[in-house]
Amino acid sequence: MNNYYALINRITARPGKRDEVIEILLEAGSPFQDNPACLLYLVNADARDPDVIWVEDLWTSKEAHATAMAAPPMRPQVARALPLLVGMPEQTEIIPAGGKGL
Amino acid sequence: MNNYYALINRITARPGKRDEVIEILLEAGSPFQDNPACLLYLVNADARDPDVIWVEDLWTSKEAHATAMAAPPMRPQVARALPLLVGMPEQTEIIPAGGKGL
Repeated sequence: MNNYYALINRITARPGKRDEVIEILLEAGSPFQDNPACLLYLVNADARDPDVIWVEDLWTSKEAHATAMAAPPMRPQVARALPLLVGMPEQTEIIPAGGKGL
Repeated sequence: MNNYYALINRITARPGKRDEVIEILLEAGSPFQDNPACLLYLVNADARDPDVIWVEDLWTSKEAHATAMAAPPMRPQVARALPLLVGMPEQTEIIPAGGKGL
């Protein structure tokens, strides 16, 4: 699974804004449905912290991810989301080793 | 996606022991391949921190996950892994909201 590019993103919304941020993240990711380079894009709410969102990303390559992020439809979504966040997303790059689900 | 049970596990291995822990995690998860209640079990190495492992879990229900964790083959694997870890795994329960890959 060595060429894959995977990320865990921890995003903190301003109080009361998590649902709105989740909607933006789901809209922003809707083009990924038709992008075969995107293997996984899961948006999750933290079960304990009412402001935290976790996004799990898996792409066929780092370049494919960068290309998708640079696509014109992504920019207005990012511009909408950023004022609703506390700080910037914490992005952790991870290297898939195996398991189930691919 | 409301009944699903999802977790992000952050595990810290003792220095030099990460590969061994990853092997144990992959072996421990091999029965999940035949368990339809397990939708995702991805074992990942942190790309920056040489001791950290991230496991992404998605199950059809909390009960199905608990049943799989309590299965007899799991216990010796846990017993093998624990002495190789720093502290206990940090388990974050998350609530899937949508995205791609299921």
